[in-house]
Amino acid sequence: MAAKITGILTPHMVPLDADGRINEAELRRYVDWLIAHGVHGLYPNGSTGEFIRFTAEERRRIVKIVCEQAAGRVPVLAGAAEANVRETVAACEAYAGFGARAVAIVSPFYYRLSPESVYAYFREIALASPIDVTLYNIPMFASPIDLPTIQRLAELQRIVGIKDSSGDLAFMMRMIAAVRPARPDFSFLTGWEAVLVPMLLVGADGGTHATSGVVPELTRMMFDLTGRRDLEAAMKLQYRLLELFDAMLYSTDFPEGFRVAVNLRGFAMGRGRQPLSTPQQIHREKLQKILHCLLADFGYVTPPAEGCPPRRQPEGERQLSQVVDEVVEELRRKGFL
Amino acid sequence: MAAKITGILTPHMVPLDADGRINEAELRRYVDWLIAHGVHGLYPNGSTGEFIRFTAEERRRIVKIVCEQAAGRVPVLAGAAEANVRETVAACEAYAGFGARAVAIVSPFYYRLSPESVYAYFREIALASPIDVTLYNIPMFASPIDLPTIQRLAELQRIVGIKDSSGDLAFMMRMIAAVRPARPDFSFLTGWEAVLVPMLLVGADGGTHATSGVVPELTRMMFDLTGRRDLEAAMKLQYRLLELFDAMLYSTDFPEGFRVAVNLRGFAMGRGRQPLSTPQQIHREKLQKILHCLLADFGYVTPPAEGCPPRRQPEGERQLSQVVDEVVEELRRKGFL
Amino acid sequence: MAAKITGILTPHMVPLDADGRINEAELRRYVDWLIAHGVHGLYPNGSTGEFIRFTAEERRRIVKIVCEQAAGRVPVLAGAAEANVRETVAACEAYAGFGARAVAIVSPFYYRLSPESVYAYFREIALASPIDVTLYNIPMFASPIDLPTIQRLAELQRIVGIKDSSGDLAFMMRMIAAVRPARPDFSFLTGWEAVLVPMLLVGADGGTHATSGVVPELTRMMFDLTGRRDLEAAMKLQYRLLELFDAMLYSTDFPEGFRVAVNLRGFAMGRGRQPLSTPQQIHREKLQKILHCLLADFGYVTPPAEGCPPRRQPEGERQLSQVVDEVVEELRRKGFL
Amino acid sequence: MAAKITGILTPHMVPLDADGRINEAELRRYVDWLIAHGVHGLYPNGSTGEFIRFTAEERRRIVKIVCEQAAGRVPVLAGAAEANVRETVAACEAYAGFGARAVAIVSPFYYRLSPESVYAYFREIALASPIDVTLYNIPMFASPIDLPTIQRLAELQRIVGIKDSSGDLAFMMRMIAAVRPARPDFSFLTGWEAVLVPMLLVGADGGTHATSGVVPELTRMMFDLTGRRDLEAAMKLQYRLLELFDAMLYSTDFPEGFRVAVNLRGFAMGRGRQPLSTPQQIHREKLQKILHCLLADFGYVTPPAEGCPPRRQPEGERQLSQVVDEVVEELRRKGFL
Repeated sequence: MAAKITGILTPHMVPLDADGRINEAELRRYVDWLIAHGVHGLYPNGSTGEFIRFTAEERRRIVKIVCEQAAGRVPVLAGAAEANVRETVAACEAYAGFGARAVAIVSPFYYRLSPESVYAYFREIALASPIDVTLYNIPMFASPIDLPTIQRLAELQRIVGIKDSSGDLAFMMRMIAAVRPARPDFSFLTGWEAVLVPMLLVGADGGTHATSGVVPELTRMMFDLTGRRDLEAAMKLQYRLLELFDAMLYSTDFPEGFRVAVNLRGFAMGRGRQPLSTPQQIHREKLQKILHCLLADFGYVTPPAEGCPPRRQPEGERQLSQVVDEVVEELRRKGFL
Repeated sequence: MAAKITGILTPHMVPLDADGRINEAELRRYVDWLIAHGVHGLYPNGSTGEFIRFTAEERRRIVKIVCEQAAGRVPVLAGAAEANVRETVAACEAYAGFGARAVAIVSPFYYRLSPESVYAYFREIALASPIDVTLYNIPMFASPIDLPTIQRLAELQRIVGIKDSSGDLAFMMRMIAAVRPARPDFSFLTGWEAVLVPMLLVGADGGTHATSGVVPELTRMMFDLTGRRDLEAAMKLQYRLLELFDAMLYSTDFPEGFRVAVNLRGFAMGRGRQPLSTPQQIHREKLQKILHCLLADFGYVTPPAEGCPPRRQPEGERQLSQVVDEVVEELRRKGFL
Repeated sequence: MAAKITGILTPHMVPLDADGRINEAELRRYVDWLIAHGVHGLYPNGSTGEFIRFTAEERRRIVKIVCEQAAGRVPVLAGAAEANVRETVAACEAYAGFGARAVAIVSPFYYRLSPESVYAYFREIALASPIDVTLYNIPMFASPIDLPTIQRLAELQRIVGIKDSSGDLAFMMRMIAAVRPARPDFSFLTGWEAVLVPMLLVGADGGTHATSGVVPELTRMMFDLTGRRDLEAAMKLQYRLLELFDAMLYSTDFPEGFRVAVNLRGFAMGRGRQPLSTPQQIHREKLQKILHCLLADFGYVTPPAEGCPPRRQPEGERQLSQVVDEVVEELRRKGFL
Repeated sequence: MAAKITGILTPHMVPLDADGRINEAELRRYVDWLIAHGVHGLYPNGSTGEFIRFTAEERRRIVKIVCEQAAGRVPVLAGAAEANVRETVAACEAYAGFGARAVAIVSPFYYRLSPESVYAYFREIALASPIDVTLYNIPMFASPIDLPTIQRLAELQRIVGIKDSSGDLAFMMRMIAAVRPARPDFSFLTGWEAVLVPMLLVGADGGTHATSGVVPELTRMMFDLTGRRDLEAAMKLQYRLLELFDAMLYSTDFPEGFRVAVNLRGFAMGRGRQPLSTPQQIHREKLQKILHCLLADFGYVTPPAEGCPPRRQPEGERQLSQVVDEVVEELRRKGFL
């Protein structure tokens, strides 16, 4: 029986070349760097990895490259959701052949399906898959997988874990209380690094989150400190990670902020496939400066030549807030909102 | 048996004096004006009437004044929701004594109650009320009253209608299809004047909406035109009403935009009880100019001395939209959003 | 310049054979039948057509078959959204070659993108597409396209219309008011047939909706009656369509109820690609009987041999409602909800 | 300067007599019992205390009784929200006179107000109040108080804390990061006991939650254990509290489940003011048995004479789940949902 999936598994992004195609050499270099910086596993074709913006063929190639490059040093949890069950099972078979430890299947998206349909979908895949399956619950983007459905699916031995990106700590506890007694091997991974340390404290086995692709040494340290129950130190890092996370997540449409940050760590990620308008490009440059300073503050990169502003500017922020309120009101008055 | 409630019933605002107390003389003058301008009925203590910002004693006084002043010229539908069933029934008794045609009871708010609790609540009130009861469904503010609950409540003869502010035309049709065959006397009133004409077309009996307190002659004309099936003319007015409605509703927190507009029609409404910040006061003055021009365009008021801008400014709006996008992004980057 | 897109364009389903593959012969027969029953156009690869459950290659083949079979008798509006802009533009080129009148592009889904990103996405596609583009707004499944974004996109001549499935009548009016003066050729199509007649009344140019694939003669008649302003007759049909629509839409996960109904019209649709659990299959058989009776009531199919129940059973429904309430409470008590 | 508000402050319910009026003697006995069982403070007129179902006069009397009975043994945080700012300030003055430590003001409810209005509302109250003010953020019931607004309000010295019932751990961290540096005396209290221990771990100063009115000894022990950083023991209790909390919260409409449980602890709470339908009453009796067993399991009450079922019944639950699915589908098919 394969080992339980634990620790930090990085849902990494995919570097693109000048022509918008997969930059294989840079992807391999990025995989090596992530492993060298302490991640416990890799997770290609996740939401951070923009699986939906690649073709089926490209998704397969990404997993192949990552499995080859990981070369057994760390396990690979491969995102395998395709257009339908048949295509998904075919991907599972291929990824088993590439040496993936397991596949991760996002709940059906676009349509919002009922729990019974979500159950039927995962059940059919699990029965046909030659490789272990983890569920991926991300209610903001896909049909939610509710607690009774998770319990029913956990009766299938082929299903070995769940990644939950709801960020709801009580929901994590409910899942653990409902499933772990009968399935101690079942893995609970959080996708919401904003509360990684508390999630580990309540019993989660690890996390797969975008930020670990930016600061793998930090998330690893948080995992280790929590494991040693050095919670004061872990929480200090959690607060600093939250600031970085918020800046990357809420500054722009996901996952563009993370692409900017991985760039800053020294990887040529290329332009994303979702086009940016001119104001968005200008904004992206400003965001880059902010993230540069945040990363420099950790000591992970050298500070920008032009220096960094002092960390807190409450006055300025407040004035900005008022400006926005007024502009929004103006907009509403004009009938735009 | 009392006549079915139909037509336009105005959920009017309450003028306040310089000390923030009910301005009785102005309220009486406003009631007279509304009746003179064609409304079919009056609806004190609605959402537009800010029932929740008055004390229980004040709410009672408002209904008393309105019933007295209406003096049987038009029916009064009195908002009677109080802290609990006992207090609500006491209000029903008082309003029956004042001569109200019926009471309107908003679904329980603050807590979001289940359909079964919503049913139990209205049932208990209906069984004890000495006066006809209409339900008030406003899902954006209070516990929704769903279709099966409406059907069950429509079995009680004391319940004679529903005001629905969901704005959902298909829901109106479902209600009518479910209830009207067994209860032809049951009144369906829409609270969403943005689509008043289509609501009447699908069979609604009338409307109770804030805009009728601002331009009663307009909503009355729309009601009459639709009744005569002059839909081309009715729809032209519907489009113009929509522009005015959006300006009053989305420009500021409800119902402040309507207070500004009623002021412009010549009533001293006073300052509202919800305080305004300094930027909100500045904004309110700008809104006043815009509404002044919109009302002048209808010919209901004389235009402002300084004139009005041309009606459409798409270029300017687009630039404003971009400004807002950038400011919002700035705000997000700072970690505010 | 091509003619404005108007009327009823059917977002049809795709028949599958016993092996789960596209049943080309049946698809061609279905296309012929739809045209013979009065639809003004065809819309392959819509939400009803389950575009997301087909591979990129299959989607292309579907459009090819439909264009060939339509053979210029009616225009084809081809769903062309692919994994990214490059793939989407390639599909646009292919569909232009197949003879499609225009493509329809759903707003970016999975991720919920900001208005600025939605704008940038459609703009890039429109600038590169060799064929007219219609926007597809379906906020329950994909990133919403808001009013300012629609206005900005309507400045691009390549963009010739929008399908809106929000069902919000006031939003339709706001779009028309904002765009039509400058773009009289811009087509507004509603995807919410529950209120088709009111949508046409406020000025929509037509509709593309699932129900037209089930009862094309009915939706066509509603369109024609509304055009002739025979609104009493049109509204009677609207109420009957609503009953059928609700039964197909809310009885099971979309679009399974529509597949059942198209089967009843005489087409071998095969099993859908989303698996059904055993309870769902049992339920599907019950649904089939109900839809059979509804369609027989229209006279579109012969009634079932075992007969049909009387149309309304309010008592039974109420009891059922109570049973459900109790079961749901039981479920909650057990900690499931 | 008054001491910072910390620890567990109980938002207690109010016992009613057979006539539905405040049972003063029982309320005094309950206050004594809560203090004896370790709560750090009392919080009359909270959501659990059903402030909205009492009249203004009753709310005042409740605070008076509680302040008198507490008699300085523990601080009283008195819910003081009334119909408008003037009434609220009058309540603040009265409660100061009764000896309350501070008031708690829920964000404006019914209407959903913008951040600017929320700011203006609290600001006006804070400037006029003779007693310290805490904010009460409960986005599921009232207008949300967002982060920039909290920062702005924290500049007013009269505002000394916030109770947040969002249950969002990352939001708690963001508040602490934004406000604590400049206001170390500002108190952060969580209203979501499902995650009390993690909230304390990230730095919250305490909690005010319904469950502390049922098992005050348990929540106090969790607070103390977390303070001593005995997190293993604290988390074990957290898991047990979650089971009890879910049973009380999700079994029925809030706060009826808590009333049942306080009854079981030996207080004659009377019938609530929200009426219960017959099925709800039957359900309530079943819930009582379940809560009785859960409380007995803690050793807080003697087990019921008829005994308790074994704790977990996954098989039975699963079957129930299927029954519900089918019934819900049945309901949908009939057009009810």
